[in-house]
Amino acid sequence: MGKPKKIVINTGGGDAPGLNAVIRGVVLAAHEKGWETWGCKYGYRGLHNTEFLVKLTPEMVWHITDMGGTILGTANRGNPFEYPVKQPDGSVKVIDASDEIVVNFKKLGFDALIAIGGDGSLRLAQKLLKKGIPVIGVPKTIDNDLSATVMTFGFDTAVSTATDAIDKLHTTARSHERVMVVEVMGRYAGWIALNAGVSGSADVILLPEIPFDIEKVCAKIRGLEKQGQTYAIVVVAEGAKPLGGEMATLGPKDIDREVRLGGIAQRIATAIEQKTGKETRVMVLGHLQRGGAPTTFDRLLSLRFGSAAVRFLEEGKSGVMVALAPPTVKAVPIEEAIGKMKAVPLDCDTILTARSLGICLGD
Amino acid sequence: MGKPKKIVINTGGGDAPGLNAVIRGVVLAAHEKGWETWGCKYGYRGLHNTEFLVKLTPEMVWHITDMGGTILGTANRGNPFEYPVKQPDGSVKVIDASDEIVVNFKKLGFDALIAIGGDGSLRLAQKLLKKGIPVIGVPKTIDNDLSATVMTFGFDTAVSTATDAIDKLHTTARSHERVMVVEVMGRYAGWIALNAGVSGSADVILLPEIPFDIEKVCAKIRGLEKQGQTYAIVVVAEGAKPLGGEMATLGPKDIDREVRLGGIAQRIATAIEQKTGKETRVMVLGHLQRGGAPTTFDRLLSLRFGSAAVRFLEEGKSGVMVALAPPTVKAVPIEEAIGKMKAVPLDCDTILTARSLGICLGD
Amino acid sequence: MGKPKKIVINTGGGDAPGLNAVIRGVVLAAHEKGWETWGCKYGYRGLHNTEFLVKLTPEMVWHITDMGGTILGTANRGNPFEYPVKQPDGSVKVIDASDEIVVNFKKLGFDALIAIGGDGSLRLAQKLLKKGIPVIGVPKTIDNDLSATVMTFGFDTAVSTATDAIDKLHTTARSHERVMVVEVMGRYAGWIALNAGVSGSADVILLPEIPFDIEKVCAKIRGLEKQGQTYAIVVVAEGAKPLGGEMATLGPKDIDREVRLGGIAQRIATAIEQKTGKETRVMVLGHLQRGGAPTTFDRLLSLRFGSAAVRFLEEGKSGVMVALAPPTVKAVPIEEAIGKMKAVPLDCDTILTARSLGICLGD
Amino acid sequence: MGKPKKIVINTGGGDAPGLNAVIRGVVLAAHEKGWETWGCKYGYRGLHNTEFLVKLTPEMVWHITDMGGTILGTANRGNPFEYPVKQPDGSVKVIDASDEIVVNFKKLGFDALIAIGGDGSLRLAQKLLKKGIPVIGVPKTIDNDLSATVMTFGFDTAVSTATDAIDKLHTTARSHERVMVVEVMGRYAGWIALNAGVSGSADVILLPEIPFDIEKVCAKIRGLEKQGQTYAIVVVAEGAKPLGGEMATLGPKDIDREVRLGGIAQRIATAIEQKTGKETRVMVLGHLQRGGAPTTFDRLLSLRFGSAAVRFLEEGKSGVMVALAPPTVKAVPIEEAIGKMKAVPLDCDTILTARSLGICLGD
Repeated sequence: MGKPKKIVINTGGGDAPGLNAVIRGVVLAAHEKGWETWGCKYGYRGLHNTEFLVKLTPEMVWHITDMGGTILGTANRGNPFEYPVKQPDGSVKVIDASDEIVVNFKKLGFDALIAIGGDGSLRLAQKLLKKGIPVIGVPKTIDNDLSATVMTFGFDTAVSTATDAIDKLHTTARSHERVMVVEVMGRYAGWIALNAGVSGSADVILLPEIPFDIEKVCAKIRGLEKQGQTYAIVVVAEGAKPLGGEMATLGPKDIDREVRLGGIAQRIATAIEQKTGKETRVMVLGHLQRGGAPTTFDRLLSLRFGSAAVRFLEEGKSGVMVALAPPTVKAVPIEEAIGKMKAVPLDCDTILTARSLGICLGD
Repeated sequence: MGKPKKIVINTGGGDAPGLNAVIRGVVLAAHEKGWETWGCKYGYRGLHNTEFLVKLTPEMVWHITDMGGTILGTANRGNPFEYPVKQPDGSVKVIDASDEIVVNFKKLGFDALIAIGGDGSLRLAQKLLKKGIPVIGVPKTIDNDLSATVMTFGFDTAVSTATDAIDKLHTTARSHERVMVVEVMGRYAGWIALNAGVSGSADVILLPEIPFDIEKVCAKIRGLEKQGQTYAIVVVAEGAKPLGGEMATLGPKDIDREVRLGGIAQRIATAIEQKTGKETRVMVLGHLQRGGAPTTFDRLLSLRFGSAAVRFLEEGKSGVMVALAPPTVKAVPIEEAIGKMKAVPLDCDTILTARSLGICLGD
Repeated sequence: MGKPKKIVINTGGGDAPGLNAVIRGVVLAAHEKGWETWGCKYGYRGLHNTEFLVKLTPEMVWHITDMGGTILGTANRGNPFEYPVKQPDGSVKVIDASDEIVVNFKKLGFDALIAIGGDGSLRLAQKLLKKGIPVIGVPKTIDNDLSATVMTFGFDTAVSTATDAIDKLHTTARSHERVMVVEVMGRYAGWIALNAGVSGSADVILLPEIPFDIEKVCAKIRGLEKQGQTYAIVVVAEGAKPLGGEMATLGPKDIDREVRLGGIAQRIATAIEQKTGKETRVMVLGHLQRGGAPTTFDRLLSLRFGSAAVRFLEEGKSGVMVALAPPTVKAVPIEEAIGKMKAVPLDCDTILTARSLGICLGD
Repeated sequence: MGKPKKIVINTGGGDAPGLNAVIRGVVLAAHEKGWETWGCKYGYRGLHNTEFLVKLTPEMVWHITDMGGTILGTANRGNPFEYPVKQPDGSVKVIDASDEIVVNFKKLGFDALIAIGGDGSLRLAQKLLKKGIPVIGVPKTIDNDLSATVMTFGFDTAVSTATDAIDKLHTTARSHERVMVVEVMGRYAGWIALNAGVSGSADVILLPEIPFDIEKVCAKIRGLEKQGQTYAIVVVAEGAKPLGGEMATLGPKDIDREVRLGGIAQRIATAIEQKTGKETRVMVLGHLQRGGAPTTFDRLLSLRFGSAAVRFLEEGKSGVMVALAPPTVKAVPIEEAIGKMKAVPLDCDTILTARSLGICLGD
């Protein structure tokens, strides 16, 4: 069992449904062992300024499993290696404040840091590890695009939110006989688009992994029309890419429009409208996918991740990240995990399913 | 009781959650009286072409209460007074096909038409009434902006969908310390914005009824920042209007941007970002608010409306619209009902509530 | 405006979705006026023992709108007029501790009490009023059976939860060709049964207001069978009563069974099974209807109630209860409000709707 | 590719969320290959009586992904090997009608049967296979207790429904300071109880796999009381078993009561009330867990299963069952799959998680 430990936990980067459940998992599991857990608010701010350190009791986390967001806050400017400090003259100077973090960590008597965060946050954790802070990482990416773990928490919720939105858009698309282009998250990997698109009965799904031919997309829409389906749902990952120079045939005005709107969805919608003559609308789900209460699936995964982080600490591990390897949760070195993306394999079962259901994948 | 009747029902215009429950209410109530109900698909198309007429049995409508959309379809081009007809040379000529509708209606032995639709659809129904078709109207506007009825079906669902979205955006706004501007429906009246904004803990709510001062909005956001709330949620009805020439001070580039994005929300976001320096994002809920299963409240209201339409027919009424006048449902002349908007009264209890909770209404 | 006030708020009796939103409404509205709000935990315990008094800040209530339960707790044994006090010999003596409450209330400098509670709690509030404590009541009954207010918060959520459960039971009833008897809340009034039954496509709805003839219920079920519907959904308010001695024909074994199960639903199910030969199952929704997040409708109503309570205080009112009188919220004397039940009127529109849809009401 | 096939599909046994999505997966995937799919209604009835055979078109299944139940109906008395036939004298004789099924299957020109069902239904399918009908099985058990597949559809939905109910019961339990015993499905395996219990913040979870000591359960509840948590949530799988003769100490009156109520939950509640003095209530979720729309997770899994069934047919397979073997869906011989239960392994990660969170598992 070893002696009681005093651990500190933080959350970094964007929201993900399940963050609070991970925190709850850590706090309760630590409490059961007689350990203390402290929350470091706003990324690493609590280790710069102890005003932002808070002791987390079981009572404080008992009812947070289904709360969206994170009770610890996150920080966009929380990188201790590039820390913005106000100068006497009012200007801001960026300094390396990481040594201060390490000093404070030790002075406060902490035994370990549990860092919940995305790729960027895990890189920071890895740097702090090299400076002598024992670290356990908990990966956070609702895009589900991390190679080291079979699934990440928040992903099931994001897919569920996106599917729910697609469901709602069906009836409107149908009653207005429109094409609806729905942009979902997924800059490098199309997991959300693929799962939500298949679940939500999309007609077309465009992923970063499969460069799309806009003619194929339009052919699909025309084909539906011939069969009497006068509307269509096109689900697009934000990182979807057109094949070759195809989309370049759109005039400069539209390119301009796309730049302003910042999205591939608008560009695709413009092309569909031009090529098929169908009225086409865009819905960018954006931030909706990051918010809200986690699904039951994500609650459980998050509690398992938080609980495993404490278990790994007890086993004396450090520099590792919790990772789902069904049916178990294993520890993988952070160093090996970061930066390794997990694209949707082109022969995976869900891709096969999409194709066999007649969904156009743009190729 | 009178002799058994043969009625025809159609749905016009955009989607509203509850349309199918109204249809179910009509079909079951008519069936109980021994009447027949026929569905006229795609607006009035079924009265032009009987291929689009379908007999509706209780079995067909039993399980549709909670389905979004309308099993009868709607039509954007369903105006029988301006009906597009393809000419031999391929061109399209717009003709008045209403006489044909009337002839078919009589030839098919119908006793009455139940028309579910918005202002435009009810105007058509009124015109057909004058041509001799007995009509009962069922009002459909999820904006809840019709003066003759205390509430319209679909409104509670739209408020609920918008509130749910605002809930989800809270955590993201907070974790990123951003201002989030959420645009909801409401071109002429701010009911959805007001109800969803108060329910969803918005900081600012902007309605068509209260021209807003962008400086007041920014003052509110700055005030929150001083109290430690580093984010804000601004809910905007699509018909919200700035006071005087205030927003005109935005440069031409931004005006251009607004025109392309087509929304007041983007314009407000740009102004907030410029004036407060806070990172600001826009979410346009748009079509999401029209789709999906109706809330329980809307299911019941819709069933009551459908059932009342049949009751009014049995009582020999015609040219009337069903309208909620709690605790009852009454019949009001369609002629008196159409075109009379119901703005949010500036002294209504929900406005008082918003103000007393400290929500900024832009004035 | 008057001088700043210091108010205390408590919640009494069973759970109701929306309690926390009422508290939030009070705290924010009071804060806007520069007043202080204190929470008295566990009924009146906080006025006996100040350990259970807590100052409520806007931050503390910001995110509780959609939380079920009450952050103040309730108390089953919180009646200050019959307060249980442990004696030195270990026994418990019930005393009138109300004078102590009054003394503490004044000593602590409170200006008014906002009491959220059901009939019992409002009676207590009325007694304290007579002892000199300024009181505003907020009615709480999810049965919606209070005459003085058109609607109570929590009711829409309870109807929604019950309807959702009925929806889920439909498919099982159908696939197993069973009769399903669903017991919902409503001891004296059948509002939940009626609204959830109509919304949830029940075949039979039994209310306290309409003594039912079990033969009529069985005739309905047999009639459905003839039309090919081999299952049925019977929704029963817990206070439903059989006509005359009809149910008394059930043998003593079944009476025994009913007593143990404590519900009318089981008794009805037994009778249906005996008389129709259809396999029949019971589902008692019970506590499920009191829990969970409030619907958007209830959130708004609760915020309005909380906000109105503060407004009434500012206007110098006391001894009144907030009550919905659409479109406004008015103040009615607590004395006139308590004990006056609101049964479902037998000619109300929803009863008419149920009948016209062919739903059997047992008569 | 082979020549176009004509396949028939049926569903057997109880409801499971996702049945319709499996059907949709089969119909669309078959359609894409140019095959015909026919639905055999009410188990095997459609192969006895062609009145109950229906051709399934893509249009008919397009919008059923999220519908609960099964559009094909199921049959409790659908065993063709023990088929009830009415005799001229009115009595019912049970005959082996399986040869008739086989003859009809061939006469109608079917190439294969896709049988979606539980253990019983798969055994029937296996028997028909031996009689010469090519069969693909799709396993259906929301208890998730089938050894051959890592997960079954409907399970995620059942866990989600149970967790949602537990969430709702928390606030009531807390406000009334009660112990709430919630009985969930799981006769042989405790997957639902375990996953819903951990996700829903239960204090005690009792599974068939871990015989429970009622004293340990009561000790946990007393311990919570000492820490100030005056309520508790106990989640019980319907197949949970007490250790040794422990529960036998309950008097005959209680045994009697338990028999009538038919559940372990009531027995446990009685024991808790007697031993701890805490007011204790029971909630049996029962049929609620089988109904309703599938979660997004189950939708996708169901579509994958349906689509894989068609793929296996095309590959010439027969006598196999689709099974999830992440990341793929594989074919396992039905013969090897049936009857092999999958209990919760006592050292699995979710059990570890439950223990590390301090949840009492009764041992």
